[in-house]
Amino acid sequence: MTLHTAEKLVVITEKFISKNVCDIIEACGATGYTVVAAGGKGSRDVRATTERASVIDDFSNVKIEVIVNDKAMAEEIMERVVNEYFDDYPGITYLEFVEVLRPAKFHKTEL
Amino acid sequence: MTLHTAEKLVVITEKFISKNVCDIIEACGATGYTVVAAGGKGSRDVRATTERASVIDDFSNVKIEVIVNDKAMAEEIMERVVNEYFDDYPGITYLEFVEVLRPAKFHKTEL
Amino acid sequence: MTLHTAEKLVVITEKFISKNVCDIIEACGATGYTVVAAGGKGSRDVRATTERASVIDDFSNVKIEVIVNDKAMAEEIMERVVNEYFDDYPGITYLEFVEVLRPAKFHKTEL
Repeated sequence: MTLHTAEKLVVITEKFISKNVCDIIEACGATGYTVVAAGGKGSRDVRATTERASVIDDFSNVKIEVIVNDKAMAEEIMERVVNEYFDDYPGITYLEFVEVLRPAKFHKTEL
Repeated sequence: MTLHTAEKLVVITEKFISKNVCDIIEACGATGYTVVAAGGKGSRDVRATTERASVIDDFSNVKIEVIVNDKAMAEEIMERVVNEYFDDYPGITYLEFVEVLRPAKFHKTEL
Repeated sequence: MTLHTAEKLVVITEKFISKNVCDIIEACGATGYTVVAAGGKGSRDVRATTERASVIDDFSNVKIEVIVNDKAMAEEIMERVVNEYFDDYPGITYLEFVEVLRPAKFHKTEL
């Protein structure tokens, strides 16, 4: 079995803008994404420590993951999400290194 | 504190076959796994862009994670899941490098 | 765009102690965290294979993720969670290497 290196791009933000983030992901050429409901607390909410219990049970955020075998595409998605939404909405975005089986599956131009 | 390298194996697929995937994981000797409900869109569904809103809210997929300290075991699980299910069901599988505290915890033969 | 290395700390444990884990995370100086509902099976539960179906559907666990740009802080959180809770509650904790856009966002002293 041959494993190939790829990047996993993660965006965690408010569910309210999840469709906008997915629009960016597809516009940049990614072929798929995974969405998980999430709660939590961001650096902007640090003062509200007394409300932590409700934060944990309030899954009003989403964690969106995209596997790409093109780091430039991953960076373009990150940059657009940050520039277009993270001034107005809380969120974080990061990359992780992964190993996949079939790299062609993750790049639209190779479908 | 000593950290040890390990592998995190991830399988994202339809909830419908999650038990089959967990059977493979256990048959290969892993001692535990974590399951998260997920929505999203795979490369096979890219044409249905008009239905994206429902895709995001439809958590009919699962993300299954397994920590193993044996890359051969991780690869065996990936290979079996792909060969036995991914011709018929949409899904992706990938590995990530992680650092854990207690490696023995993740390998059945060492329990 | 400049990416910076950081650590993603993950704790998977019972929902029952999620507030305690978040207390430790904040006490150690992290500025935010993400919480996802999870099911699964740990190494302590391996014998109960006949109950796997219910395990998959029972999201009584949580997966808590924290991005930090300070590995010593990540290790302190891991060590406290393990020492204070993992004798009495099932759980795992691991680190992943990630790349982020804005490192200052993840360290309280730099807010």
